[in-house]
Amino acid sequence: MTGISREDALALDAADELAAVRERFVLPEGEIYLDGNSLGALPRATAERLRHVVEAEWGRDLIRSWNAAGWIDLPQRVGDKIGRLVGAAAGEVVVADSTSVNLFKALSAALRLRPDRRVIVTERGNFPTDLYVAQGLIEQLGGRHELRMVERDAVAGAIGADTAVVMLTHVDYRTGAVHDMAGVTAAAHGQGALMLWDLAHSAGAMPVDLDGCGADLAVGCGYKYLNGGPGAPAFLYVARRHQEAFRQPLTGWMGHAEPFAFGTGYRPADGIRRALCGTPPVLSLAALEAGVDELLAVDLRAVRRKSLAMTGLFRRLVAGMGLELGLELAGPEDPAACGSQVSLRHPQGYAIVQALIARGIVGDFRAPDILRFGFAPLYLRFADVWDAAAALRDVLETGAWDRPEFHRRHAVT
Amino acid sequence: MTGISREDALALDAADELAAVRERFVLPEGEIYLDGNSLGALPRATAERLRHVVEAEWGRDLIRSWNAAGWIDLPQRVGDKIGRLVGAAAGEVVVADSTSVNLFKALSAALRLRPDRRVIVTERGNFPTDLYVAQGLIEQLGGRHELRMVERDAVAGAIGADTAVVMLTHVDYRTGAVHDMAGVTAAAHGQGALMLWDLAHSAGAMPVDLDGCGADLAVGCGYKYLNGGPGAPAFLYVARRHQEAFRQPLTGWMGHAEPFAFGTGYRPADGIRRALCGTPPVLSLAALEAGVDELLAVDLRAVRRKSLAMTGLFRRLVAGMGLELGLELAGPEDPAACGSQVSLRHPQGYAIVQALIARGIVGDFRAPDILRFGFAPLYLRFADVWDAAAALRDVLETGAWDRPEFHRRHAVT
Repeated sequence: MTGISREDALALDAADELAAVRERFVLPEGEIYLDGNSLGALPRATAERLRHVVEAEWGRDLIRSWNAAGWIDLPQRVGDKIGRLVGAAAGEVVVADSTSVNLFKALSAALRLRPDRRVIVTERGNFPTDLYVAQGLIEQLGGRHELRMVERDAVAGAIGADTAVVMLTHVDYRTGAVHDMAGVTAAAHGQGALMLWDLAHSAGAMPVDLDGCGADLAVGCGYKYLNGGPGAPAFLYVARRHQEAFRQPLTGWMGHAEPFAFGTGYRPADGIRRALCGTPPVLSLAALEAGVDELLAVDLRAVRRKSLAMTGLFRRLVAGMGLELGLELAGPEDPAACGSQVSLRHPQGYAIVQALIARGIVGDFRAPDILRFGFAPLYLRFADVWDAAAALRDVLETGAWDRPEFHRRHAVT
Repeated sequence: MTGISREDALALDAADELAAVRERFVLPEGEIYLDGNSLGALPRATAERLRHVVEAEWGRDLIRSWNAAGWIDLPQRVGDKIGRLVGAAAGEVVVADSTSVNLFKALSAALRLRPDRRVIVTERGNFPTDLYVAQGLIEQLGGRHELRMVERDAVAGAIGADTAVVMLTHVDYRTGAVHDMAGVTAAAHGQGALMLWDLAHSAGAMPVDLDGCGADLAVGCGYKYLNGGPGAPAFLYVARRHQEAFRQPLTGWMGHAEPFAFGTGYRPADGIRRALCGTPPVLSLAALEAGVDELLAVDLRAVRRKSLAMTGLFRRLVAGMGLELGLELAGPEDPAACGSQVSLRHPQGYAIVQALIARGIVGDFRAPDILRFGFAPLYLRFADVWDAAAALRDVLETGAWDRPEFHRRHAVT
């Protein structure tokens, strides 16, 4: 394929500065896992950490662990750690709830910070939960606001004097295309609007600089490149300068200034803690912390370098298969304009993905026609990239995807 | 003490129909854990279940477990199981988010179901997060609504033609006092109001009959008597007759009719699934399911019988210490009017609780002066009740609580 041999890929592995990190993860035998952008792999340390939390902290020490094991501080402690991965200072990030719930908090707060403006600008291709949460909030607020959904290249032009907040996902979940965080944030600010970033597909996959870009609010997901486990809690960033005025409607007891005074009136805690709502999900937080710790042990610039090298290799390998096999690249030509994934279009994308899975090459499919291949740099090898491309070529050339079982849809696709 | 000997307590243990259930839980050596109403003990099966979910379902099968291990159905599957404990039919309960977040959904939906009414009636002594969430919602809706907080005995009289919803916690977290679920629900309905129950301190501790009482909405907590682990996800009940009109503002993708169609407009799923928001917290859901399974293996009527016998015994034992030692009973005289706890008042309550903890008798303290002793019938023995009462008497008689370290406040009290 395109003159790049498997030996070339093995040579890249031999020179990989992150090669040893793979040993820190559990990976299934005989499989190539290209779905770390959907569910990150299990760090070996996580199983041990969870066992300790369950058996010693919960089982043996029980209620005392809220103090003795620092359970009560987990949302902020893990938040600060994630902050180091996304360019946030200590005290600007907290871990809580789901990405969707945190979006609701962040959007609610943004509309309160810009009470005279009625528009939320976003792109039509944003991850659906972002759109849905905005729609639910607008409906609840009586329909006075508008969710302005525009095409990707029309976002900047759609921001106006009526815009309260611009909400975008930094890395597109379908195509991997990356927004210019500094540029779009400046454009929003130029119109007096706030900027809310969803970092679901960037946190842990590349360096992000929220503070440096002047972002106002951000949310992100714990179960993708942060390797926090299925349904891991999410995080919320509020720039320090907004924290005093930040008010969100999910005013549960853990966001109270004095939760254990058990008073009858809500009074928000100082700082980022006011973004909390209910009791922290300790088991999930512990698993997430273990995943985040793996990322803190490496240099995110090296992660991004390896990511670009892997996605670049995969792009070159599939370029040769291109048109004659019906594949098209989805998203930017330039790997540097993309996250840690390569997305391809094919009318039979669903069945092709299933046929690859049957061969142990695990990617995923996103409607209507996108084959997504995620390249998590912490645990993938260049040889995996080569093998995946070879398998894809074979499945396409032999028509191996055209079997009934590969067309059968699952609940989660 | 009051003529009841430790041998009497041991005889009760010998006759206890639930005695064998204790072996199914991990309990610390040399301790008596009377805080299962705050954080339930660890079921032995949970550690094994979590190990399987982490190592096999996540570590080995990865993304495929959303289908193959049924992760995507966990919120409804565990919800249906909890439904059997609280008198709900299949399809009326879902597990998601925290109790606080579910309260926000339920209250939002209730106000939409009663658009011409502007009052939420509750009692001042309700658990604070219930009050805070109502306050946050009202503020978000522009202040048109009112949270009417009244004393416990004034609730029925406070419900009027202006009342949209009555929100009460079934078992008072401080005193253990139980509301008459059928009676109060009927009183609410008599005024055309909806009834929302918080089952935090009743689910798993006694039979509850939501459907039978005609309740409209309910929420509850996974980490108390359901033994789901610290910060376990919570549950939400929506009576079947309201589900079609039930709309809540946290419209995340998991509540969408077709989450994996990735459309741009939110459309609520049929049935209870529309109460979901973000991605299900799989690890926590698995732990919660293991805890709930322990309760499904016993008869909740037997649980309640043992609970009443234990709280009754503790009450008789402490009655003798009563006034001369400065203790007062908090809550109803009649054990049958109480949940699975006994609460006492003492001006030095905090230090007394700490002194008991130092002796391995783990209860907790609730401001301003309440000593709470929870009696989880699945894993406590009558001899534990006797020993706890004896220790309390000794701590009071000897003044052992009056040491500096017992006055030092922790983050979580």
